[in-house]
Amino acid sequence: MGVRTGEGGERLRARDLGIVIGELPTGPRNAITDVPGVRIGHSTVWFGDGPLRPGQGPARTGVTVIVPHPGNLFREKVPAAIEVINGFGKTTGIAQVDELGSIETPIALTSTLCVGRVADALITHALRTTPEIGVTTSTVNPVVGECSDAFLNDMQGRHVHEDHLFQALASSSDGPVPEGSIGAGTGMSAFGFKGGIGTASRRVSEESVGWTVGVLVLANFGSKRQLVIDGVPVGRMLDLENIKEPERGSIMMVVATDAPLLDRGLRRIARRTAFGLARTGSMGGHGSGDIAIAFSTSASVRIPHVAPAITTNVALLSENGVRGDGSPIDELFQATIEATEEAILNALFRATTIIGRDGHVRYALPVEPVLDILARAGRV
Amino acid sequence: MGVRTGEGGERLRARDLGIVIGELPTGPRNAITDVPGVRIGHSTVWFGDGPLRPGQGPARTGVTVIVPHPGNLFREKVPAAIEVINGFGKTTGIAQVDELGSIETPIALTSTLCVGRVADALITHALRTTPEIGVTTSTVNPVVGECSDAFLNDMQGRHVHEDHLFQALASSSDGPVPEGSIGAGTGMSAFGFKGGIGTASRRVSEESVGWTVGVLVLANFGSKRQLVIDGVPVGRMLDLENIKEPERGSIMMVVATDAPLLDRGLRRIARRTAFGLARTGSMGGHGSGDIAIAFSTSASVRIPHVAPAITTNVALLSENGVRGDGSPIDELFQATIEATEEAILNALFRATTIIGRDGHVRYALPVEPVLDILARAGRV
Amino acid sequence: MGVRTGEGGERLRARDLGIVIGELPTGPRNAITDVPGVRIGHSTVWFGDGPLRPGQGPARTGVTVIVPHPGNLFREKVPAAIEVINGFGKTTGIAQVDELGSIETPIALTSTLCVGRVADALITHALRTTPEIGVTTSTVNPVVGECSDAFLNDMQGRHVHEDHLFQALASSSDGPVPEGSIGAGTGMSAFGFKGGIGTASRRVSEESVGWTVGVLVLANFGSKRQLVIDGVPVGRMLDLENIKEPERGSIMMVVATDAPLLDRGLRRIARRTAFGLARTGSMGGHGSGDIAIAFSTSASVRIPHVAPAITTNVALLSENGVRGDGSPIDELFQATIEATEEAILNALFRATTIIGRDGHVRYALPVEPVLDILARAGRV
Amino acid sequence: MGVRTGEGGERLRARDLGIVIGELPTGPRNAITDVPGVRIGHSTVWFGDGPLRPGQGPARTGVTVIVPHPGNLFREKVPAAIEVINGFGKTTGIAQVDELGSIETPIALTSTLCVGRVADALITHALRTTPEIGVTTSTVNPVVGECSDAFLNDMQGRHVHEDHLFQALASSSDGPVPEGSIGAGTGMSAFGFKGGIGTASRRVSEESVGWTVGVLVLANFGSKRQLVIDGVPVGRMLDLENIKEPERGSIMMVVATDAPLLDRGLRRIARRTAFGLARTGSMGGHGSGDIAIAFSTSASVRIPHVAPAITTNVALLSENGVRGDGSPIDELFQATIEATEEAILNALFRATTIIGRDGHVRYALPVEPVLDILARAGRV
Repeated sequence: MGVRTGEGGERLRARDLGIVIGELPTGPRNAITDVPGVRIGHSTVWFGDGPLRPGQGPARTGVTVIVPHPGNLFREKVPAAIEVINGFGKTTGIAQVDELGSIETPIALTSTLCVGRVADALITHALRTTPEIGVTTSTVNPVVGECSDAFLNDMQGRHVHEDHLFQALASSSDGPVPEGSIGAGTGMSAFGFKGGIGTASRRVSEESVGWTVGVLVLANFGSKRQLVIDGVPVGRMLDLENIKEPERGSIMMVVATDAPLLDRGLRRIARRTAFGLARTGSMGGHGSGDIAIAFSTSASVRIPHVAPAITTNVALLSENGVRGDGSPIDELFQATIEATEEAILNALFRATTIIGRDGHVRYALPVEPVLDILARAGRV
Repeated sequence: MGVRTGEGGERLRARDLGIVIGELPTGPRNAITDVPGVRIGHSTVWFGDGPLRPGQGPARTGVTVIVPHPGNLFREKVPAAIEVINGFGKTTGIAQVDELGSIETPIALTSTLCVGRVADALITHALRTTPEIGVTTSTVNPVVGECSDAFLNDMQGRHVHEDHLFQALASSSDGPVPEGSIGAGTGMSAFGFKGGIGTASRRVSEESVGWTVGVLVLANFGSKRQLVIDGVPVGRMLDLENIKEPERGSIMMVVATDAPLLDRGLRRIARRTAFGLARTGSMGGHGSGDIAIAFSTSASVRIPHVAPAITTNVALLSENGVRGDGSPIDELFQATIEATEEAILNALFRATTIIGRDGHVRYALPVEPVLDILARAGRV
Repeated sequence: MGVRTGEGGERLRARDLGIVIGELPTGPRNAITDVPGVRIGHSTVWFGDGPLRPGQGPARTGVTVIVPHPGNLFREKVPAAIEVINGFGKTTGIAQVDELGSIETPIALTSTLCVGRVADALITHALRTTPEIGVTTSTVNPVVGECSDAFLNDMQGRHVHEDHLFQALASSSDGPVPEGSIGAGTGMSAFGFKGGIGTASRRVSEESVGWTVGVLVLANFGSKRQLVIDGVPVGRMLDLENIKEPERGSIMMVVATDAPLLDRGLRRIARRTAFGLARTGSMGGHGSGDIAIAFSTSASVRIPHVAPAITTNVALLSENGVRGDGSPIDELFQATIEATEEAILNALFRATTIIGRDGHVRYALPVEPVLDILARAGRV
Repeated sequence: MGVRTGEGGERLRARDLGIVIGELPTGPRNAITDVPGVRIGHSTVWFGDGPLRPGQGPARTGVTVIVPHPGNLFREKVPAAIEVINGFGKTTGIAQVDELGSIETPIALTSTLCVGRVADALITHALRTTPEIGVTTSTVNPVVGECSDAFLNDMQGRHVHEDHLFQALASSSDGPVPEGSIGAGTGMSAFGFKGGIGTASRRVSEESVGWTVGVLVLANFGSKRQLVIDGVPVGRMLDLENIKEPERGSIMMVVATDAPLLDRGLRRIARRTAFGLARTGSMGGHGSGDIAIAFSTSASVRIPHVAPAITTNVALLSENGVRGDGSPIDELFQATIEATEEAILNALFRATTIIGRDGHVRYALPVEPVLDILARAGRV
């Protein structure tokens, strides 16, 4: 059916297939780049075939960067929070984000064992743009998240190098976001199918200020049987071999918003990603590093590295609510939950079948039977 | 339809209506009391009608107790953890549970403004059974959770007194658990309908050790439109007046298990309640105190107030997994998530319509239209 | 020696005896009330003598209140943070302060087993001043800290009642702060001597904005041998019976400042109290509930219960530093550490010998031999 | 004075100069290696002189490793906790240690910007000894702490490479620990003097089980004026140019013990390092990454990567106390505090004057005037 692939034959996004998660309107691209200033870049590392030769390949991996704003992030930091939902993960940079409530580099996502190399590359990038670091001013805190692409990729080879990060940054764009088996998502699996990068967005407070919440995920978790799509337990209804395999993966969830929140409010936002994650069937498995990072791009809460005066003026979301209405943060929570759920689905729907190390095949989600199940449940 | 109420005309539980949440088997009672030794007691406070006279009534409130084991809890503490999912709540006792990883009183749930009185009553109870407290040994840490029953109840009156707690303890039972508009649940609302007490349980590792996870909730959160039952967005599909009212409530979730876990493992369990909660449609609203308490009744991890020797032998769940299998905690996670979701539904399905202060009416969930919607979605 | 007591024969403060902690200048009263708007009130409960009759007396206890500003605290909340240094304590109100970063009642300190009653009394007070609570708006989160006065007091009797709290509030003053064996400090012990209430303050950024940090402690921890005064291990040098008794007590530390900080910055401040505490010889003993609460009275960070608009303007301390200087928060850290250490010493130096239940005597710190030791070490 | 240097002219440790911190006995080496099985290795990177050429040198840096036991750490993990006292730091590995309560690699300490490279090198090391990582089993979580050696070292060059880590591991020893300007300590400064590596130990429960607590620090914090030695404010009493420079450094503190504690108890231990740190004059400065890592080497709490059975037997410290005595953890707290304070002093007393980039000179602590001040205060 032509309606189930795009014009170029590419896999369609969940919403293009008729799956509508939640009730809030999406931004124009239904992507994290709907948040003004946010750019996404990918660099895919792919070479070799056949048997795993540890350290040699084959490589099915990469790096994805989320750039909060186009300026110098070290000099103009963004408020941020990292919420560890399940900490079987190796995200670096957490202590300083907790303490200072800000992020001062792009956020990079990559293969687990590459975190050290990518963090080092982020430092190189920061030194190039900000040569005073570690000489006349303080050091820089790279933030790198990860998932394990062990099933398809020669992880031990740690094939993501400095140039890949630079390339991801150089090619980053505020336009449509490539999804699926690309960048850090190249070798990832979700619910026993091919996973990877997905994104979505929501608009809130349209009638007043018109804020956007955008989510980008690196989806690499779950077993087939767990998969739930828009409330329908698709995983249990698909005619699948029922391998009882432990959930070994992870998910990184990055939330951007232009709503003016500082670290505490952003932590509340980050924590809500678990609600979206849960609706896709995740159990937050033991071996899953489920970690969310939220930041605000609002100019009204930007944090300068060197302040002009001993106090800084900030305009903050009125979290307690306005004149008897509920808190405006509730709509941001809803937006986060809906966009997280949809971003995960987009990772699944967009990812293509990949053959990796040792001939391991990770199949793309079979769209037709899934849509049939959803149709029978009245969901498309 | 006779099948939709019990023989005595009472409201049936979700499972009795054909709603099956998840895949794990339930315990014999599908209740927290399936965990050996756990007892539940309720005391309902109900008097007056008509206009609210603050401090005078009408009263639609109460207290519910969860007793982890039948012995002296101060002398034989249970490992425990409290996870704050959203902290707009007044649960007391958190700091010590965090520090020492144990609970030394029954857990009580009540109306928000009654926390002080009920905590004081728990102290009275501890002093009666353990007269050395505060004289020759240390003090005692009461654990009390709460939700707001302001819509139906004269909260300012704080009508739960010491005798009500004693009565709840005295009448506590390890048998079937009364649900709905009883005890602490008397005045609670969930998803715009009548809420209150619900419970459910799951069995894990049947083939080996046969552990049980039981959950009891005090459900008092959510707006009508948010309600999701077994994945079906019932709230959006019911023909309801669409009042856009802020989510103001809260939920307390208590998880008991006889699996041998200490505080860190129990915190992981407690955190999984958010996954079950999310599946019912909760957004973890700003004004919602969403708090989970987990404890283990396993004799192999019991914590004596006075130890016989400088080290204590403990048999702990092998969290990292056994011989290549995944972690046995994953099944406990699944059990927690499923039992939490079902306990919330049981609160809704079992609660009866209540008329409270100022003639406020909180209607019971309309079972027929809900079942029709679920049937159309193929879920019953 | 006349110089070692005041004109009326009362015990002098540490600084009046020549002990100068740290380097920053004190405020005019060297008390938490140097922070504009902060008021302190005490109510002492004292009756009976002789043998302990549990529940009957003798009573050597009380309540102390810290009022952050003279207005309606529920409607105009102050930013705040609670840091649990050692959590063997029963402080109530923590979850909501963590989540929302604000305090909405006066802070009360009392005897451990009275927390429930005093929290209930704070609710009564809030209801009187803010009748919409629990009727047309949300509920209120009382913050009550505690230490154990078991050595001198009939704790089981819980002799602090609602009227005592009201009296403490009604008599609260922004003037000099009575210290030692008064209010919540009546029955407390520190370092094996009589302890209780102490306070101190420091001024920072004199040349620019001139902020004040004030600390009030309820000191009830430590064994004789641990006592360190201004770096001198006085406890080891006093000619004392060397009872090896476990440290059973606790300390509550309340920090007020008019520097404009929100919850994250205030948590950093609160955490610094441990540094001052450590300098007095504390080991943060197992059985010690060591808890710090910090709040800002700055009008520029006040948090309204109902906001006039969807964003609120705030002027925040520029934590990252101004034009190459270090962070202005460093001076606030120093102020907190110095004031905490001095407040603890003031509790010791000001507290008078008390005879309590069962004829238990807790002696005041012997000033002469202590000063002699300090003089020999060149510290006075 | 000959007594103030060793036979070979090297700088003596604090205790050899007559400074005795606290009261507990030290282990035989007064070093972290007194804890059986613990090994320490250093690799120093030193080349170049003269002006800083960013990326080229001069190098004054290195890496230090703490190896918890001689076996395969991935297969036999140790219980552990990381406590962030002030989080302006870049320690990696925190989320997983928090979640699982264990460490599965040696701990490495290095220069801030080298964390990525050293983490990557730890992975390489783990892959060599445990080739199943990332192929047939899960990934590995390297733990790397850091301080900034920017004053002396070309930080931007990140001159610590994989071979340096391997060399540090290969040369690691359970014997006496080289201190001062060595390994990660090469370029570090403390209290305006040369800092670096220091260690100390304490023995507890001699009469019964005879446990040891060992601490190793990487000391790189504080301004001259803040320095306190054994309670004496030496920094204020030395005749020094009084540069008011912001505290920019950090301290890493690693605590090893053979007492049988799991993560929660070890976090309590780790938190006590702040008490020892505070006694040296630290304010926990804004820009200071003050982070403590504690682990237990006790065989009775070892955590296998693959367990033989669904439960694992553990013998835990009886934290609540034995037959009316206080908690045995109190002595471990005291040991931690004393050893931390002394380890910091050893870093200062042992470190030698270093000339680094741009001709920057960091002078060793002047021993004679310091001892004179201590003598006048009666402390040596």
